[in-house]
Amino acid sequence: MNKFWDNYPEIQSKLEFVKMNMLKVSKNGNSYLNNSFDYLFSTSGKMLRPAFIIIGSMLKNIPLTKEKEIIVNNLAAAVEMLHSATLIHDDIIDDSFLRRGKEAIHSKYSKEHAVYMGDFLFSECFLMLSNLEIPKEVVIKLAEGISTICKAEMLQNYYRYDFNVTDEQYLKIISGKTAVLFGISLSIGAAQLDFDEEELKKIFNIGFNVGMAFQITDDILDFISEESVIGKDVKSDILKGYYTLPIILSFNTEYKNEIKSFFDKESLSDDDLINIYNLIHKSGALEKSKLIAENYTSKAINELNEFEESAGKKVMREILPVLLKRSY
Amino acid sequence: MNKFWDNYPEIQSKLEFVKMNMLKVSKNGNSYLNNSFDYLFSTSGKMLRPAFIIIGSMLKNIPLTKEKEIIVNNLAAAVEMLHSATLIHDDIIDDSFLRRGKEAIHSKYSKEHAVYMGDFLFSECFLMLSNLEIPKEVVIKLAEGISTICKAEMLQNYYRYDFNVTDEQYLKIISGKTAVLFGISLSIGAAQLDFDEEELKKIFNIGFNVGMAFQITDDILDFISEESVIGKDVKSDILKGYYTLPIILSFNTEYKNEIKSFFDKESLSDDDLINIYNLIHKSGALEKSKLIAENYTSKAINELNEFEESAGKKVMREILPVLLKRSY
Repeated sequence: MNKFWDNYPEIQSKLEFVKMNMLKVSKNGNSYLNNSFDYLFSTSGKMLRPAFIIIGSMLKNIPLTKEKEIIVNNLAAAVEMLHSATLIHDDIIDDSFLRRGKEAIHSKYSKEHAVYMGDFLFSECFLMLSNLEIPKEVVIKLAEGISTICKAEMLQNYYRYDFNVTDEQYLKIISGKTAVLFGISLSIGAAQLDFDEEELKKIFNIGFNVGMAFQITDDILDFISEESVIGKDVKSDILKGYYTLPIILSFNTEYKNEIKSFFDKESLSDDDLINIYNLIHKSGALEKSKLIAENYTSKAINELNEFEESAGKKVMREILPVLLKRSY
Repeated sequence: MNKFWDNYPEIQSKLEFVKMNMLKVSKNGNSYLNNSFDYLFSTSGKMLRPAFIIIGSMLKNIPLTKEKEIIVNNLAAAVEMLHSATLIHDDIIDDSFLRRGKEAIHSKYSKEHAVYMGDFLFSECFLMLSNLEIPKEVVIKLAEGISTICKAEMLQNYYRYDFNVTDEQYLKIISGKTAVLFGISLSIGAAQLDFDEEELKKIFNIGFNVGMAFQITDDILDFISEESVIGKDVKSDILKGYYTLPIILSFNTEYKNEIKSFFDKESLSDDDLINIYNLIHKSGALEKSKLIAENYTSKAINELNEFEESAGKKVMREILPVLLKRSY
């Protein structure tokens, strides 16, 4: 299990159950298929989305019934399977050899297998949801979430290599790609408690704003990570034409043309990267990006503070600074 | 609209509505995304799966209520979107440049777009199903169908280049890849009428057996189409390591080694193809394949005959000989 949850044994053990559940439903083919699912789930990360469902279900000081526990576990497994499906397909598209330090599915097995494995996880996610005794609205919310993610991915792909992509378009893409599923996860977890529609909307917003801050922070960190790490992600993003917020904001400064001049190159040398890196720093785009991320974080915290104290609220308040690297 | 339904204006007009429905739900992105869906649905084929849902809903001489008509239309759109998603992903994997005589999505747009477009269609199919006022069982059946297809695709991929693949394994693959969805389509259409569970199972079997016969016939036709067409599909199947029933059955004959000797080649000349083609013919594998297909067709017809006369039964009986090329 990922160390991120070391201080939260309750969440950790629930995430372990989620993993077992995912393996149980996925492994019903021949040994080759089964092995590929074992491999996939052996490389899981922080499992933030299922964790958000679990945290959502802890936002009141009432213990869940056994039935609700099962529903939460299944929702969490469904969301993680969906997320795994999108990661597998992303890695094929980005030709990423590694995922979380291990070979990506398409490089360990084959592109063919990876495409179908993603499709299979999508369908098993849906099958799991259809089998649950939950209100239709929850299934619809999640199905809409999946569509939103795919549309955002198509949009992100459409804007590749587009120097004119705006910060608004970037925010729209990451809201669909990342933030919506964070919001849905937290709110469908909370929907297992007796919150009303109004409160569930607020809880969705908490998750959504955390998701926005999380993605922007991720894009900022590419430019301020340790020397050894810098460059790898930036280089790959630039060469693949994905322009993240720091880059987009730097285009609105006097450094625009100088930065852009590197972007037409077929490959980038280490010197090029250091130059880009320095220009982005000098342009002030990182500070602006941080302010935008901070803004989403503050919104999330203010919204969270409106709720009464609960185990879920406590966990959320404690993990936010770590997750959103507020110390950067 | 495909000419296949020219003699069935009722089905044709219902399929037109299905197409409009698919376009309506898919087109809600920017103009680039919208155009790609216009393009996709402009190249639709016979739309057999949605047609089977419609035919299923015509298996009694009772007109459908307006509500049921809408359900049938939505189920049909969902199934065709699902099928389109699998075709788009198949074409990426097989590097097929053309689909129904027009550029495949991944070659007209990009692989990236095609992967996400398939994923988006999967999720819109789920979303459509979740929004319908139908018993859970129908949604579960379809979700299981999608999983079955993906598992069969993974299995087919696993058995690529395997000289020891058996006819039983081939039948298992095509049952998952093709036949199950034919069966589900016919039976979820019929489920809109007042058939009991027993009858719905029989109706599933009719669709399933037609699907088996259809796929085997397709694989046979690759070897007996007109001179100009021969070779293209066979060549591509052999080079990609997909061994279909005629090939598998020829491996059980004295021509085995001679045929296999061609299969290790990196490319196949026209002469090679003619040789393979002649050997498969001489081996008697085509006749054996035809017998197997005929067997599925007979089963389907016998099962169909157990039902009382209806508009749906009439259509099914009339299209089967055309669909299954019983005159070969």
